[in-house]
Amino acid sequence: MAAPRLSLDAYERGVTAGDRAVLGRAITLVESTRPSDRELARDLLARLAPRAGNAVRVGITGIPGAGKSTLIDALGTHLTAELGERVAVLAVDPSSERSGGSILGDKTRMARLAVDPRAFIRPSPAAGTLGGVAQRTRETMLLCEAAGFSVVLVETVGVGQSETLVAKMTDFFLVLMIAGAGDQLQGIKRGLMELADLVAINKADGDGVSRARRAATEYRAALRLLFPPAHAWQPQVVTVSALEGTGVADLWAEVLRHREQALASGALVARRATQARRWMWDLVDDGLREAFRADPGVAAAVGELEAAVGAGQLLPTSAAETLLARFLATTQGGDA
Amino acid sequence: MAAPRLSLDAYERGVTAGDRAVLGRAITLVESTRPSDRELARDLLARLAPRAGNAVRVGITGIPGAGKSTLIDALGTHLTAELGERVAVLAVDPSSERSGGSILGDKTRMARLAVDPRAFIRPSPAAGTLGGVAQRTRETMLLCEAAGFSVVLVETVGVGQSETLVAKMTDFFLVLMIAGAGDQLQGIKRGLMELADLVAINKADGDGVSRARRAATEYRAALRLLFPPAHAWQPQVVTVSALEGTGVADLWAEVLRHREQALASGALVARRATQARRWMWDLVDDGLREAFRADPGVAAAVGELEAAVGAGQLLPTSAAETLLARFLATTQGGDA
Repeated sequence: MAAPRLSLDAYERGVTAGDRAVLGRAITLVESTRPSDRELARDLLARLAPRAGNAVRVGITGIPGAGKSTLIDALGTHLTAELGERVAVLAVDPSSERSGGSILGDKTRMARLAVDPRAFIRPSPAAGTLGGVAQRTRETMLLCEAAGFSVVLVETVGVGQSETLVAKMTDFFLVLMIAGAGDQLQGIKRGLMELADLVAINKADGDGVSRARRAATEYRAALRLLFPPAHAWQPQVVTVSALEGTGVADLWAEVLRHREQALASGALVARRATQARRWMWDLVDDGLREAFRADPGVAAAVGELEAAVGAGQLLPTSAAETLLARFLATTQGGDA
Repeated sequence: MAAPRLSLDAYERGVTAGDRAVLGRAITLVESTRPSDRELARDLLARLAPRAGNAVRVGITGIPGAGKSTLIDALGTHLTAELGERVAVLAVDPSSERSGGSILGDKTRMARLAVDPRAFIRPSPAAGTLGGVAQRTRETMLLCEAAGFSVVLVETVGVGQSETLVAKMTDFFLVLMIAGAGDQLQGIKRGLMELADLVAINKADGDGVSRARRAATEYRAALRLLFPPAHAWQPQVVTVSALEGTGVADLWAEVLRHREQALASGALVARRATQARRWMWDLVDDGLREAFRADPGVAAAVGELEAAVGAGQLLPTSAAETLLARFLATTQGGDA
């Protein structure tokens, strides 16, 4: 699956020159699970890191049918055409965990951006666990920033844990909604709202305008009631029409207003520092779990023990202690 | 700190006989961090496990000032006096992590329950991390169930992560609120609501009744809008007066209605099985982190690396890989 590899220098030169073909191959490299590829990817990322971090990182989620792709197409085009930005669109797609499918597989859903020379669209990594997919996306974001993209939009679906992971890698989190909550909202995970820096009610067009405005008013009230300001920024609610592009400029103005505040207060620096440390510890946890599950002593016992715990026949404390003892026996002091 | 120890048999006999003094000492035993105590506690829990699991486990949270203690006093008294239940009140108090203080230290806040022979009040474990405190509380819950308590109320404050941990060890999660959101809600962590099986608006007494009713209506609308039913149970909203005891019976009726549904659908069995497995894996993660941080090679490097990551001078990926390599080098194949 991995593309033919280039040299470290070639990857670095190509990416920093903004060569889209090389960028694509560099992303394929960081997505590869081959140990030799991982090693090369690690070196490449270390080299490019100093050039990364300058983009506006925006996470975007919303239930299927809310119009995420249409909004990203409209927003991205506004950014490239009106504001001269260079926009990378990435995705974290939990379904890629199962099916290998991707919410961004079908680029025709972003007709204008797909052919926009100032835009770069990359589907979700198709392999690995959700955590692994998220990590690849974080690394891909660094590559895109090193390649000179000034805005990175990370799309995810508003179900499961993916939106939390995306919120943990972005500066601003946008939740896309549509009027007429009830049925359309069934799919939404509780607590999605808690991540929102901005809620945008889409499809404020045609005879949908007043419905969208009413919904926005309801969301403002609900957010004020349930989510009082934890910090300086109180999540905003706007209406947009991704279809007609109306409200998209105002939406971006909110992103920039948030950014100004966060830069002035130091909140952005702090948020990114926290995200970086959190990322490091997540990787440590993942690595420890991998080593643990790969341990033969653990592997031999875990299934039976977990079943007994689930059936209430064994205390979680006893099961955990048994497993940890096996792991540390194998590892500590080697093959004793 | 640890009380003089009894024999394993004496602990088992005393707890299963419902001897409050022995139960108290058994709880002190599971709270002890002395390895020998931990071992004895482990054996005791393994013996008592078959007698545990029969209580209705209810988590209760709410911001300071919402009237948690008064509600628990009223609810607990209703349960013991009217319904003949035996009620244990436990707590998970994050502040115990720092100050050693406890939200349940002052039993006078539950004047009636404190002297109720059918009730047992135990403050939050005062030592250890929040995760450790939560684990001790889970073990204490098993002891109380083995001692014949038919209802276990686990109190926690509605800030930080403690409410999530309590929701993960209970069958039903109650969030206590008061009317006049604004200021009083400032302290609430976003997303607290997502855990609620029931929201109770307290202080529906005197001239507060209409305010509480209005608040209840607002919360119903907000919950419907933001948290559509993920499963069969849609979080309910009731008004109560902990002071006068009004609404407390209706509140408990909701708990039982939820329980009936969950028993019939198998959701309760599934919830507890998931909690038990989750608990096992949490313990494994904790144990792995402990071993990791205790590793001399890791300890020597982690501070510097984490600082560099936070300052953006080092990639989280590189830092994590360095630390993991040090850990597995020490452990795998021993002192190579």
